[in-house]
Amino acid sequence: MSGPTQSTPPTRTRSWWGWGWADAHPDDAECAAMGSLIPGTLARPLPVPRVRDLRIAPPAVEPPASLAHLVDTGPEQRAAHAMGKAYRDIARALRGRPGRIPDLVARPTDEREVADLLDWAGERRVAVVPYGGGSSVSGGVEYRGDAHRAVLSLDLTAMGRVLEVDVPGRAARIQAGTLGPSLEDQLRPHGLTLRHFPQSFEFSTLGGWLATRAGGHYATGRTHIDDFVQSLRVVTPAGTSESWRLPASGAGPSPDRLFLGSEGALGVITEAWVRLQPRPAHKASAALSFARFGAALEAVRALAQSDLAPANCRLLDAGEAALSGASQDGSAVLVLGFESADGPVTDRLARAVELARSHGGRRDGAAHAEEGAPADAAVGAWRSAFLRMPYLRDGLARMGAVAETFETAATWDRIPALVQAVREEVGAAALKASGHPATVNCRLTHVYPDGAAPYFTVLAGGRPGDEVAFWDELKAVAGEVLHRHRATITHHHAVGRDHRPGYDLQRPEPFALALRAAKGALDPRGILNPGVLVD
Amino acid sequence: MSGPTQSTPPTRTRSWWGWGWADAHPDDAECAAMGSLIPGTLARPLPVPRVRDLRIAPPAVEPPASLAHLVDTGPEQRAAHAMGKAYRDIARALRGRPGRIPDLVARPTDEREVADLLDWAGERRVAVVPYGGGSSVSGGVEYRGDAHRAVLSLDLTAMGRVLEVDVPGRAARIQAGTLGPSLEDQLRPHGLTLRHFPQSFEFSTLGGWLATRAGGHYATGRTHIDDFVQSLRVVTPAGTSESWRLPASGAGPSPDRLFLGSEGALGVITEAWVRLQPRPAHKASAALSFARFGAALEAVRALAQSDLAPANCRLLDAGEAALSGASQDGSAVLVLGFESADGPVTDRLARAVELARSHGGRRDGAAHAEEGAPADAAVGAWRSAFLRMPYLRDGLARMGAVAETFETAATWDRIPALVQAVREEVGAAALKASGHPATVNCRLTHVYPDGAAPYFTVLAGGRPGDEVAFWDELKAVAGEVLHRHRATITHHHAVGRDHRPGYDLQRPEPFALALRAAKGALDPRGILNPGVLVD
Repeated sequence: MSGPTQSTPPTRTRSWWGWGWADAHPDDAECAAMGSLIPGTLARPLPVPRVRDLRIAPPAVEPPASLAHLVDTGPEQRAAHAMGKAYRDIARALRGRPGRIPDLVARPTDEREVADLLDWAGERRVAVVPYGGGSSVSGGVEYRGDAHRAVLSLDLTAMGRVLEVDVPGRAARIQAGTLGPSLEDQLRPHGLTLRHFPQSFEFSTLGGWLATRAGGHYATGRTHIDDFVQSLRVVTPAGTSESWRLPASGAGPSPDRLFLGSEGALGVITEAWVRLQPRPAHKASAALSFARFGAALEAVRALAQSDLAPANCRLLDAGEAALSGASQDGSAVLVLGFESADGPVTDRLARAVELARSHGGRRDGAAHAEEGAPADAAVGAWRSAFLRMPYLRDGLARMGAVAETFETAATWDRIPALVQAVREEVGAAALKASGHPATVNCRLTHVYPDGAAPYFTVLAGGRPGDEVAFWDELKAVAGEVLHRHRATITHHHAVGRDHRPGYDLQRPEPFALALRAAKGALDPRGILNPGVLVD
Repeated sequence: MSGPTQSTPPTRTRSWWGWGWADAHPDDAECAAMGSLIPGTLARPLPVPRVRDLRIAPPAVEPPASLAHLVDTGPEQRAAHAMGKAYRDIARALRGRPGRIPDLVARPTDEREVADLLDWAGERRVAVVPYGGGSSVSGGVEYRGDAHRAVLSLDLTAMGRVLEVDVPGRAARIQAGTLGPSLEDQLRPHGLTLRHFPQSFEFSTLGGWLATRAGGHYATGRTHIDDFVQSLRVVTPAGTSESWRLPASGAGPSPDRLFLGSEGALGVITEAWVRLQPRPAHKASAALSFARFGAALEAVRALAQSDLAPANCRLLDAGEAALSGASQDGSAVLVLGFESADGPVTDRLARAVELARSHGGRRDGAAHAEEGAPADAAVGAWRSAFLRMPYLRDGLARMGAVAETFETAATWDRIPALVQAVREEVGAAALKASGHPATVNCRLTHVYPDGAAPYFTVLAGGRPGDEVAFWDELKAVAGEVLHRHRATITHHHAVGRDHRPGYDLQRPEPFALALRAAKGALDPRGILNPGVLVD
């Protein structure tokens, strides 16, 4: 299961308000067809929003002459940088109420320019919101509040090069603004890959992955971007931090681990040495179905605790399996995949299938699907749906439906009750608030010997015109359930602004004291991504 | 290669000045025999030092009545807690010049008592030096300076219980003062193991491992204690920090990673939930010899970059192989070991041996050594030497020899020149300073796809009576070489006080600002392990 690795012709246009490419959005007829499946939605889709209807005011500040060539003050770019791509952001754009529009969009081309922009912003009390691919689904790239004179969106994508590749040492120095496909394109001639494929891969950057502790789509092993970091360079208002390029070190608390997950609040990550891997040459995948979700959970735990290390071990509950076309008979579906650059993986797949069978899994499709051969129908269906999902979400949003996901992680002992509670309580809250039944599905995306990461999908209608408040209500219920079950507020979608309440409850208070102090030392004027992580 | 897991009868006495058990030290004749191998050493061993010769003054403060039952003010315990177990510490004890003797040794039995002791110390400006097993080899458990009214050694070993075991979830909640053998003894009935075996295993605690980011002896995979942490509880002067028990989380910078490696300077780790593993049932090991160290390095890199994941992949250079009895013909020796709880590992061993052969490795011993069967002679010799090594070091110290190790890590591109420079420059410095040739050997203990951890042994004579200054000179040369090659000042022995100069050069300055600010927030009175990490 490699992610998409082809670079895209530069002629395609990114949607300013919705996910990805403007030309990939479902048309009105598709939207209406999807909407008809969710009770309480609109009869016709909301129109695609236009920037000119926002009547964006001129910027509150002018960029300095010395940096003006880096800055765009046009309404199109400012609107496109106003928010990330959470359902909440899409719904606000559709209703003509986006978040605060940044005054300026700057695209520095090197680290000196980043530092100059921070210096200028510090002097002028201008908030700086670092921006990679803009795919945040937690309110990470917008400004809320009014404590600053103006807002600068700091778009890093002009810093998009692989600067150095150490082939024998399997590492590369890469600029933070490099988007996923370009990063893989630049590594491919060296026979290496970062092998980090979050769902947002096409529209997110290395710097964004690092700042948000992104998770790739691999179920086990090295899937968190944290584990790929050899060293970081970070421009802070207090100076530039550069850690040494090391395979490991025990010298004090890890400097990199302070900046990983700092979400632009402590500094701007400008480049990193990251660990690479050879491109997998051997792949095999299979799907199994389970009559009971509980039995499937036990199978997944056994797999996670074996030494098989599946690249994919994605468990879809009955609703999720139906939604993605992987199964229509009420079964849960387990999608297994193995990859190796070293040698065949069919033996490992066979052992994994056997283990899953011993927990009640049924093998419906073909025996094994080697690379190049047609994958199991369920595997293929799931993969297509996975990449298409955000576009469909936006199509449903145009129908006045709430369509969103959220993810968490918890230890195995808490998983069954947690999944049930989220389904029941979020479902009940939706019914109560809208008068219509909602869909709440669950899949496990990442599995660990000691726990798993459940990922929930919510589809609900019945409050057209009031979708944002409706979703906020459901999200508050979900956050409360997660907190009660001691499940993290986010497994790989970052805290941003949307998850602050849950994060503040989860974070140990002494650590909050330490983090606030660190913020004060590195960003004494409080210009970096205000409102994120600490106040 | 499991470490020693038997608990030891409580009747044995720990050495106050040297490594481990007092009765395990080499006798005078053995010392003399060893010393005769190193030019420029004494003819007769220095006497075993006695606490009464230190003429320890009464404590500068009295413990409060409410906590007096936790406090020992006797000279034996105070002397035993004055220093760690670096060569430097041993030499100072042998010469009757130990570090500052702590005024009090406190042994809290619960977290409340830890907090009470910190409160009292904060009010009285008493420095608190957290103390686990006391096996620090970097000056981590002593006090230097005179900025505090008195010094309290906070011995955590009365908090030594496994409190909870989650067998299906493979995790346990364990008190920080639990020593290695006791920890494994308490887990054994559950069929689980932490599988963390640093060389100090018998004489170090979970809390010490966490505070110093200890490395186990496994060469690849999960060997750093960092990776075993689900959650931590840490008592700080600003309150108690408790992270949630989670398999993974992307919610901001990891709170645990700030405390991992904090070496008692930010708080006192009191307990942790840690990830466990089933006990390995399948083991196999083998040794290969290489005529050239450079070829062996290439073999090790290939192994580290394969998917074989050897549990042991320890490369001894010719000198180290001779010293440990693994080889006497000038060959480098590679010790390979595989372990699994799941299934046989002989196939993996065979593939690893084949890979090593393709790089010039020669297979001298028996084909494979399954568990229970006699291991290769070289493997067995190395293992015995490994556990006996610190005792021999102390015996050599009694002969007036410098006998010490230090370890580092660097990316593959730097390893050959780094190893050569350390050997040459430290050797030359020893010769110049003492008039006698010194031995400088190297082994690789941990290997990564992107680099390795070289571990150096230095044996030098010629400056009896002046050993501490001699070693400090050699260590300064070593530190300079490491810095020039951008190799970390410590891979798994922590910074303590001895590595501060190298650490200060390695640590990015903005991170130092953040760390100082965090220290100020958590330990505003500056009582926690003063001089460690930050000033």
